[in-house]
Amino acid sequence: MHTIGFNKPYLTGKEVHYMYDAVFHRHISGNGKYTKLCHQFFQEKYHFNKVLLTSSCTDALEMSALLINIQPGDEVIMPSYTFVSTANAFILRGANIKFIDSYPHHPNMNPDLIEECITSKTKAIVVMHYAGAANDMKKILSIANKYNLYVIEDAAQCINSFYIDEKNQKIPLGSIGDLSAFSFHETKNIISGEGGMLVVNNKELEKRAEIIWEKGTNRSAFFRGEVDKYGWVDIGSSFLPSDIIAAFLYAQLEELEHIQQKRLWIWNTYYKLLKPLADQGLFELPYIPEYATNNAHMFYLVCRSLDERTKLIQHLKNKGIQAVFHYLSLHSSPYYKDKHDGRMLPNADKFADCLVRLPFYYDLSQSDLEYICEEVKNFFSNI
Amino acid sequence: MHTIGFNKPYLTGKEVHYMYDAVFHRHISGNGKYTKLCHQFFQEKYHFNKVLLTSSCTDALEMSALLINIQPGDEVIMPSYTFVSTANAFILRGANIKFIDSYPHHPNMNPDLIEECITSKTKAIVVMHYAGAANDMKKILSIANKYNLYVIEDAAQCINSFYIDEKNQKIPLGSIGDLSAFSFHETKNIISGEGGMLVVNNKELEKRAEIIWEKGTNRSAFFRGEVDKYGWVDIGSSFLPSDIIAAFLYAQLEELEHIQQKRLWIWNTYYKLLKPLADQGLFELPYIPEYATNNAHMFYLVCRSLDERTKLIQHLKNKGIQAVFHYLSLHSSPYYKDKHDGRMLPNADKFADCLVRLPFYYDLSQSDLEYICEEVKNFFSNI
Repeated sequence: MHTIGFNKPYLTGKEVHYMYDAVFHRHISGNGKYTKLCHQFFQEKYHFNKVLLTSSCTDALEMSALLINIQPGDEVIMPSYTFVSTANAFILRGANIKFIDSYPHHPNMNPDLIEECITSKTKAIVVMHYAGAANDMKKILSIANKYNLYVIEDAAQCINSFYIDEKNQKIPLGSIGDLSAFSFHETKNIISGEGGMLVVNNKELEKRAEIIWEKGTNRSAFFRGEVDKYGWVDIGSSFLPSDIIAAFLYAQLEELEHIQQKRLWIWNTYYKLLKPLADQGLFELPYIPEYATNNAHMFYLVCRSLDERTKLIQHLKNKGIQAVFHYLSLHSSPYYKDKHDGRMLPNADKFADCLVRLPFYYDLSQSDLEYICEEVKNFFSNI
Repeated sequence: MHTIGFNKPYLTGKEVHYMYDAVFHRHISGNGKYTKLCHQFFQEKYHFNKVLLTSSCTDALEMSALLINIQPGDEVIMPSYTFVSTANAFILRGANIKFIDSYPHHPNMNPDLIEECITSKTKAIVVMHYAGAANDMKKILSIANKYNLYVIEDAAQCINSFYIDEKNQKIPLGSIGDLSAFSFHETKNIISGEGGMLVVNNKELEKRAEIIWEKGTNRSAFFRGEVDKYGWVDIGSSFLPSDIIAAFLYAQLEELEHIQQKRLWIWNTYYKLLKPLADQGLFELPYIPEYATNNAHMFYLVCRSLDERTKLIQHLKNKGIQAVFHYLSLHSSPYYKDKHDGRMLPNADKFADCLVRLPFYYDLSQSDLEYICEEVKNFFSNI
């Protein structure tokens, strides 16, 4: 049987070479040669103000919560349909979360629902751009400005994706919020196994970001000769990844354009093959808002019901194809349901119940994609 | 000029091979084949109840603080002469720290000073075994039992070191506290660049440790088939290292005995060569208490004054030898001095001012060691 897994990490071939080089030069702890090369890559390519590699996107979100100085009782606004780390990072600092519903036809948080959740305790809005598709940043920034809130982008899925502004300018996701967090987990477009990155766009937070990254010490300033000894000056943690991980990542970054090209071809092929079924109303296809670009991070369908999705996943499994659902709404999770304020978030629940992700990785061929789409078609012809 | 750096990571030669294997098998995110092999190694060799690799020792300490449920206002007892992460991990959860002085002749925390610092808010004692030499665990456990406190071992430097009990039994460090944290930073005996490990000896904390490790989800239980879907059930973070890092670590663990043998030879050589100078009262040599073993993590001298240490470091630097001081007392750091309760901790300050670490790594030869000791001798003959 033709078997197609959900994900298969893509290797450019240079990862092992660069890891070997890092090991050979015997700087394998954090902030070595390859970490600096990755930092430089992002700062040059996307004009991010300052970046710091981290052990995970979760770590970058936790750094964000530390940097905006979240205190017990502060409130943070974010989508319900997101990964647990988006919320945990702020809950670890004592925040209460106001979860916001998705748009009816897009998993992203609906900005029209934000304002009613703002109180005097609200400190930040965390935007998660689902599947790499930008949220409506004009609306979000205008609310944040009105209430003087920090904006943090959970850009886990957003590498090489853009927000398109009114002047039709493409602004890189991750460069808009005060702080942004990227992921290089092996399921992402560009990977390093585990791995992440904090982007510090707000210059006022830049200096402290470096201190928190270095376990609360002013070690970076010391190595630049700005202070004559370094010590404990703030809270912090060990957020630096080993330079081995940075070496792996750098090999991937060198092939970014090439990887993106192939992924976009996969995405467009899926779209073309499945459009006729979507036009019959059997499911919804991913929707890219006019202010967003498509970075081909994932391809998903939204089924008409939980039951239909369950059966579709099972049908595909029987045919050797691994399709998977995604987040459970955080507001109704075992951990948070008693803490949630009781608002109904029906769209988040819809995506939790009905969204299914199809296999998506660099190595997928035309015939793989035809086989998958054919089996999706077969499933819907039989119901 | 003969130049000798302070540290040079040792490679067994298999690290790149195993990393390649991890990459080739395309499981490079956390908890893959090599993570499991490392877990198994530690559980079998040292009879640790349960271990979980982490991205750093700092992460393992933070997991400990989460697991013992530190709340704002709780008090935690620990040495002042330790790394910032020992304290930060608990401060991030809102704890106040009671810093304890060192023994007069050993950097370890003096257990006789603990009891006077215990209040109704005290929740845990964190023991840091300096240079891998056990603290007096009988005394510490007896205090912990009397006041019903958790014991956490900061075992960052303690791989393959032991506490010797009254029956002359060797008990592995890291197996004694409720929880213990190890480091595999590139400066340690066994390395993975950045990296660490949590040991969960208290069985009551075992299940939750797995959840906190997996971002607050019951994913591990799901993969064992104990629950039928996994979701957000608790706070947590992303503490798992990439399996690439575990692959590197596993190559080192296979050579543990061999590495330790060489390091012990280096330590004993230093000791023998420097003993005559110490006997003249020029400095103190490392002292291994009768209840401790020596894992040859580092070799240090304790000078008679800050001034003499500064000059010794400079003299060695002039001769191409990199010797370095170690911790600054945390109680008098810029971050904590205003929060400290004002007790004088003269021994911690003495080690902060007077302790100097000599170069220590696998590749050091007899002639390197003779050269270093000769220059130490030259320095002291000229003052």
